[in-house]
Amino acid sequence: MHPVEFIRTKRNGGRHTKQALETFLNAYLGGQVPDYQLAAWLMAVYFRGMDEDETLALTQVMAQSGETLDLSALGETVDKHSSGGVGDKTSLVVLPVLAACGLVVAKMSGRGLAHTGGTIDKLESIPGWSGELNEEGFLRQAEGVGMVLVGQSKDLAPADGQLYALRDVTATVDSIPLIASSIMSKKLAAGARTIVLDVKVGRGAFMKSLAEARELAGLMVRIGRAAGRRVRAVLSQMDQPLGHAVGNAIEVREAIATLKGEGPDDLRRLVLRLAEEALTAAGRPTGQAREALDSGAALSKFRAFVEAQGGDGRVVEDQNLLPLAPGIFEIRAQTDGGVLELDAHRVGQAALWLGGGREAKGKPIDHSVGVYLEKKIGDSVRAGEILARVYHRNGYGLDEAVSAIQTAYVLGDSVSKPPLVLEVLT
Amino acid sequence: MHPVEFIRTKRNGGRHTKQALETFLNAYLGGQVPDYQLAAWLMAVYFRGMDEDETLALTQVMAQSGETLDLSALGETVDKHSSGGVGDKTSLVVLPVLAACGLVVAKMSGRGLAHTGGTIDKLESIPGWSGELNEEGFLRQAEGVGMVLVGQSKDLAPADGQLYALRDVTATVDSIPLIASSIMSKKLAAGARTIVLDVKVGRGAFMKSLAEARELAGLMVRIGRAAGRRVRAVLSQMDQPLGHAVGNAIEVREAIATLKGEGPDDLRRLVLRLAEEALTAAGRPTGQAREALDSGAALSKFRAFVEAQGGDGRVVEDQNLLPLAPGIFEIRAQTDGGVLELDAHRVGQAALWLGGGREAKGKPIDHSVGVYLEKKIGDSVRAGEILARVYHRNGYGLDEAVSAIQTAYVLGDSVSKPPLVLEVLT
Repeated sequence: MHPVEFIRTKRNGGRHTKQALETFLNAYLGGQVPDYQLAAWLMAVYFRGMDEDETLALTQVMAQSGETLDLSALGETVDKHSSGGVGDKTSLVVLPVLAACGLVVAKMSGRGLAHTGGTIDKLESIPGWSGELNEEGFLRQAEGVGMVLVGQSKDLAPADGQLYALRDVTATVDSIPLIASSIMSKKLAAGARTIVLDVKVGRGAFMKSLAEARELAGLMVRIGRAAGRRVRAVLSQMDQPLGHAVGNAIEVREAIATLKGEGPDDLRRLVLRLAEEALTAAGRPTGQAREALDSGAALSKFRAFVEAQGGDGRVVEDQNLLPLAPGIFEIRAQTDGGVLELDAHRVGQAALWLGGGREAKGKPIDHSVGVYLEKKIGDSVRAGEILARVYHRNGYGLDEAVSAIQTAYVLGDSVSKPPLVLEVLT
Repeated sequence: MHPVEFIRTKRNGGRHTKQALETFLNAYLGGQVPDYQLAAWLMAVYFRGMDEDETLALTQVMAQSGETLDLSALGETVDKHSSGGVGDKTSLVVLPVLAACGLVVAKMSGRGLAHTGGTIDKLESIPGWSGELNEEGFLRQAEGVGMVLVGQSKDLAPADGQLYALRDVTATVDSIPLIASSIMSKKLAAGARTIVLDVKVGRGAFMKSLAEARELAGLMVRIGRAAGRRVRAVLSQMDQPLGHAVGNAIEVREAIATLKGEGPDDLRRLVLRLAEEALTAAGRPTGQAREALDSGAALSKFRAFVEAQGGDGRVVEDQNLLPLAPGIFEIRAQTDGGVLELDAHRVGQAALWLGGGREAKGKPIDHSVGVYLEKKIGDSVRAGEILARVYHRNGYGLDEAVSAIQTAYVLGDSVSKPPLVLEVLT
């Protein structure tokens, strides 16, 4: 394999054999192919794409580049992935639902990316809770509690980490085969038998159009299936944020409310749909999901999970144990009308301005700040009514956040609720 | 300027401002932008191209990245560039013609690239001749003799050298704006007022089609003109080699024969056309070219130039002073017919097999080996007649060379001579 010939093949629109792709990537990982050759190849892939066999080969090289977890002793393991959205606290609800249904949730999760939050960041707003467990502790908790959630390990699919870092600085992130293989390499290495994917579509998502979301979801489902996993993908709307809460602690509050049957309707519907798809994939009756949620079994499972990882389980009873920034700024409507648009991307940016996201890798975040959206698309509003509440710390980033939220709202005449779940790919 | 944004702009088909391009390139040359970001950008340029302003900006950054020669004290300076062909000894004739016409030839020249030979390599087959001169000696000879030719200096447009090395290992060489800016950056830095470009088209050239040769030539002419130079480009056929001789010393022999009026017709015609274009650009009467060639003035100028750079000037009288390998292999026609094709690329490869080219940078070459093509396209031939003579050293590379030449010739019925000069761009 000559690296220049390999790059030229893709540049000219050719396809790589599995063997050529493996040889090139392993030479890169072994340090024989330098970053600049991989960068040129990644840009050629951006323009020429990769077919399904190529994408599967890339995924498998990355999945096998480090440790792979063997969860086979744990029974019916399940994993859930979101492509990233604003106000997306779905995992915090759907995972305890699935665990309460008897599936085993042994999951690694990422931190926030760009304007979207990360599940680990959110859970760290619970006093004492930690996402750091060694492999033994991870497996023991999965077996004992039925649910464990830790931060993404550097040992899992490390090649993906290397590639992603290079894509990030060479403008080659937004390529569907590269995104699909990046996500699926981590899922394959993480070992769960059933995988349910929540692919977000819209202005607050990385996939802006239904067509590209469908392409990504279909590709991931086929990769997972070719690797012997049971995979389903739900395409869900992310033009506006999910639920009312955007932030860290404030989203945990909303997730707990949902586990108690008191959460927003859109979040509850998405949770049930994702859980039902996972149960179907795993060969279980779908009715279990609603039962687990309505009976309180999922809430109990959540509490057990939090406590097993050192967190204060009383947060499920007393939401004041979750930090909420003392400064409150109310954004009010200027006119009467219906909410036509509520730009999720701008709301996500607002949370970043307030300090709720990570400005750079390793920087601390403020778990207590955030936004509560009183009005969502399809709601009617009168002039002077509150549209949103901004929770800030001493005014930090407040001007920018308020401005972002004000421009996120578009009021007009028509009031209709948009669909939430757009499609399911099986 | 954020490098990732800059790369993304080109990736998305946008155009760079002059300032953005200069900032990015200077940051690369200063070591603040790493190779992998330049590699990704180069691949994006391969796919998206660059417009004329962008190409001019790139050319000027590279031209100004090192020394630039000030030849303004030397009068009417002229430079000639060939895009590289097989058997292309044109410079060895056209430069003394122009010098004999009173123009000043102060030229830097490259070595052979791939299957094509380099002028410096050819001249080094003259005993004693050296292409190494310091700037002072270079300028003194230009003034005294009117003709000087040295190897490409590392101090001239060093940025082009850096970019070319990276393009070479990232499959981004064959991009017309990148080729145009690479060539023209060196021409601009080398300082001549008049530049005549010989852009080769065909199977032995880097440009395979007339359309791409025309695009490259037009772009180079416009870049040169925008930088205040007088530029003309000749597009010439390179399906078959130029003249009969392919190698190093053997090409010098043919060049000297041409200076004596005894050379092949195609070479003489191309030399005169290039010289006439240069004279027209410089505002001189074109008739001077033929006169310089036919009067022997160009031959005298060649001898003076060779001797000024330490070479044995008697080579113009005694061609046996030029080394010719002792082994001769004759390739004969199998059938009667006319020569339909004579693949220049294969003949160039044959010369490489024999040891006449450089296998790797810095490796020595054998000046004495080569090929003499008795028959060219349009010639009639009888079975058993000699098509070509191969001059080899103890059989080194002979089998491969013979095979390459045998397959280079295609005999058939029709016999017609192809046109040599296809177009002139002014």
